[in-house]
Amino acid sequence: MQKSQNISRSVIVRLPRYHRYLSELISMNIERISSKELASHMALTASQIRQDLNCFGGFGQQGYGYNVKALYEEIGKIIGVDKLKHAVLIGAGNLGRTIASYMNFNDCGFELSAIFDNNPEIFGLTVGGIAVQSIDEFESYCSTNTPDVAVLCIPSSAATEIANTVISCGIKGIWNFSQKDLIFQDDSIYVENLRLSDSLMTVRYHLKD
Amino acid sequence: MQKSQNISRSVIVRLPRYHRYLSELISMNIERISSKELASHMALTASQIRQDLNCFGGFGQQGYGYNVKALYEEIGKIIGVDKLKHAVLIGAGNLGRTIASYMNFNDCGFELSAIFDNNPEIFGLTVGGIAVQSIDEFESYCSTNTPDVAVLCIPSSAATEIANTVISCGIKGIWNFSQKDLIFQDDSIYVENLRLSDSLMTVRYHLKD
Repeated sequence: MQKSQNISRSVIVRLPRYHRYLSELISMNIERISSKELASHMALTASQIRQDLNCFGGFGQQGYGYNVKALYEEIGKIIGVDKLKHAVLIGAGNLGRTIASYMNFNDCGFELSAIFDNNPEIFGLTVGGIAVQSIDEFESYCSTNTPDVAVLCIPSSAATEIANTVISCGIKGIWNFSQKDLIFQDDSIYVENLRLSDSLMTVRYHLKD
Repeated sequence: MQKSQNISRSVIVRLPRYHRYLSELISMNIERISSKELASHMALTASQIRQDLNCFGGFGQQGYGYNVKALYEEIGKIIGVDKLKHAVLIGAGNLGRTIASYMNFNDCGFELSAIFDNNPEIFGLTVGGIAVQSIDEFESYCSTNTPDVAVLCIPSSAATEIANTVISCGIKGIWNFSQKDLIFQDDSIYVENLRLSDSLMTVRYHLKD
């Protein structure tokens, strides 16, 4: 089982859902499950689940279904949660502080190890056990610590400039909470634009007038 | 231009992006734009943009492109941001308080008018100008105020029970931040499951080992 190229985004975004459901099944002491049962829990079809897992080589056994713990571990490896990468967070305002303290980075395959902001009033403030540093320290931090991912909780007006700095420091992934979509042509850079307001507007769209 | 049935989710989730880009163009005093130019800004293709907008009747004029302000307003109407719906938030922990104070609900088509929690220590605490109430008041609040949407910032262990209460009170939309996927068979209920950890795991997936 390994990470293949050309897996569609719709499959990739279901991997964390599988991981989460399987973890629930483990906590209920369920040892094996058919694709049909897994499908009914996840509001998918059994054939969609088989197709998804076949992208990574497949795991089920005809007539047996899936071994829950083995599948959980394999999907964890495919996502990469078994090998922690190094994350930093930029922007320790209201949202940034919540993300730093609320999120379980380790469960998602990361260790959050530094937080940066441009507001001197909060330098030294401890958030989730980490002291906020000046953004002026960012480049020297990167040259020593080579982080893999930056979590951007900054205003959209600052997003492009900060993202360019981040990339120039060798960071390969961005988890972007700013309203500005960050788009890079370089395929070695991955950006996950998480726009809370877009998500809320999607709820509004679905309501009757 | 109206909300049609059977618009695919991938089109719907792009509507807020169009809305946001067009708002940026307006702030730059750009009056019209071709689908090609709009596409290059949004990392889409011109034909995808034309197809998306054709789902709602189409707006462009051959040889002219799109009138930026008119398209912005039409897309706003399609999403529904011109008619505010009534939202309540349940769960005023770290995340809930940030969502209540950080999000601009009005820009997304909502008025946030009440916040509920089960922790007596924070009853009366003001968040984003709204005093936190006891969850015990929720049903009576709904019978008087008929909210449209509930924002759930609660632990996954409480999600199913609270969601069932919310639906039984006549609420038609849920913006769900809990880790528990909420799935309803009833087509008149819309749930947007926003799983921050799934999004972060997607970043992890894309990093090289």
